[in-house]
Amino acid sequence: MSEKAIGVFDSGLGGLTAVKELIKVLPQENIIYFGDTARVPYGNRSRETISKYAEQDAGFLLSKGVKMIIAACGTVSSNAVGLADTLTVPFTGVIVPTAAAAANATRNGKIGVIGTSATVNSGAYKKEILLRNDKIKVYQQDCPLFVSLVESGFISENDDIVKLVVERYLSAMKKEGIDTLILGCTHFPIISKAISNYLGKDVTLIDSGRETALYAANLLGNNHILNTANKMGTCRYYVSDTVESFRNTAEIFLDKSVEGEVSHISIEQVEL
Amino acid sequence: MSEKAIGVFDSGLGGLTAVKELIKVLPQENIIYFGDTARVPYGNRSRETISKYAEQDAGFLLSKGVKMIIAACGTVSSNAVGLADTLTVPFTGVIVPTAAAAANATRNGKIGVIGTSATVNSGAYKKEILLRNDKIKVYQQDCPLFVSLVESGFISENDDIVKLVVERYLSAMKKEGIDTLILGCTHFPIISKAISNYLGKDVTLIDSGRETALYAANLLGNNHILNTANKMGTCRYYVSDTVESFRNTAEIFLDKSVEGEVSHISIEQVEL
Repeated sequence: MSEKAIGVFDSGLGGLTAVKELIKVLPQENIIYFGDTARVPYGNRSRETISKYAEQDAGFLLSKGVKMIIAACGTVSSNAVGLADTLTVPFTGVIVPTAAAAANATRNGKIGVIGTSATVNSGAYKKEILLRNDKIKVYQQDCPLFVSLVESGFISENDDIVKLVVERYLSAMKKEGIDTLILGCTHFPIISKAISNYLGKDVTLIDSGRETALYAANLLGNNHILNTANKMGTCRYYVSDTVESFRNTAEIFLDKSVEGEVSHISIEQVEL
Repeated sequence: MSEKAIGVFDSGLGGLTAVKELIKVLPQENIIYFGDTARVPYGNRSRETISKYAEQDAGFLLSKGVKMIIAACGTVSSNAVGLADTLTVPFTGVIVPTAAAAANATRNGKIGVIGTSATVNSGAYKKEILLRNDKIKVYQQDCPLFVSLVESGFISENDDIVKLVVERYLSAMKKEGIDTLILGCTHFPIISKAISNYLGKDVTLIDSGRETALYAANLLGNNHILNTANKMGTCRYYVSDTVESFRNTAEIFLDKSVEGEVSHISIEQVEL
């Protein structure tokens, strides 16, 4: 066992949807979260820039002595493909756990994948799904405006703007008859009700945060580094922009108030 | 006179709407543009972070030997307030020229201001307008989703999503009876038709890029550094993310194809 923390990072605060799931699955684990709020969003940047930022983010968590690293970010997981090889601790992104869950869940062999432009353009989800079953048909759609809707507070399932954007992005894959949809960006669970209302309840939504938390629990177990202390773990948060705006936004994603300490760090000064 | 270039920077590519206007007003000037595409957008970041980024951006342009610097970005102009004092060349942001034009244009003394959250929260436009005429009523609204609409390609005046978002953000100031509206973000001219359709043609839209270009021409004249060479100037572009995606997006803002050379630089390594 190990009482060291699990390190989780994301381009911003969306990764807190994965932290929320991690706390449900592994309540006794300590968590150190880094959100790169000074450089968010990564979703429209080039692969080179995303990889460089991801290495700095992981490097910061390593400097805090974490026992494992989770990239709770679809964009990083699908673009910073060499990251795992540079690390000295177990690592997972969101792609492998989520693609496996989706391949498992589909009944008619038609899976939709939505994410940022960088995630969808990488083709990473599709590749991982086809590795498991090359008969599956994968329909991809980048949905950059979903991220902005959530960040600008347009999240109600009854909001006409939200409903129209959902329809615009998802009508093609609805017509194709998908029965499973990967929410391939940490922001998307926040508007999952609007998405589900549009697609209908027969379409299974796969939440990358949830699947990654379950996968991380397995990975810790296999490496014999689960925290088996008989007490609740704590969360410690770091951000690269100022901490003032952190709490309000964080609560949208965590779905509860922030309890742990929050600090600012200068991510650009992390040496690789 | 001086054949040195005018330096223009923005958090991303939106500042090219100002370059477009600058070319109209001063066709013989050479322009060096820097777009901080690796760290865009600035609009939701803290004042400290915006100021630090702006100093690096201006520092890069100075290293290229420009004779004047324009911050073609509402967020920078309204938040990096100490920037002018640190520079050795004439400088203008977009606030002073645009606020002056709006104060001049209003007939009923009711001006609306829209911009990013950082711009609106700074109160910079309102302050500059009231300095000119403290009887004017200023109605402010941050419109973060406008930026995302433009960047995600939702720009048609006939698009229901665009129309609904315009209505959501502007209905309160329409009800107040504004007769003048400051488009306080470089992205907003791209959806000015949708905005004008909603507010009606009696409301004058003030484009910050246009007003800043006119102001810059005066500033160059007063400092005796206009380029009076009898030939068309050239444009040289630098971005902090990769150059691949630059041209397509740039054309939306420039409203023509990109002719000048485009290079990548590492903005984080600019020493202050």
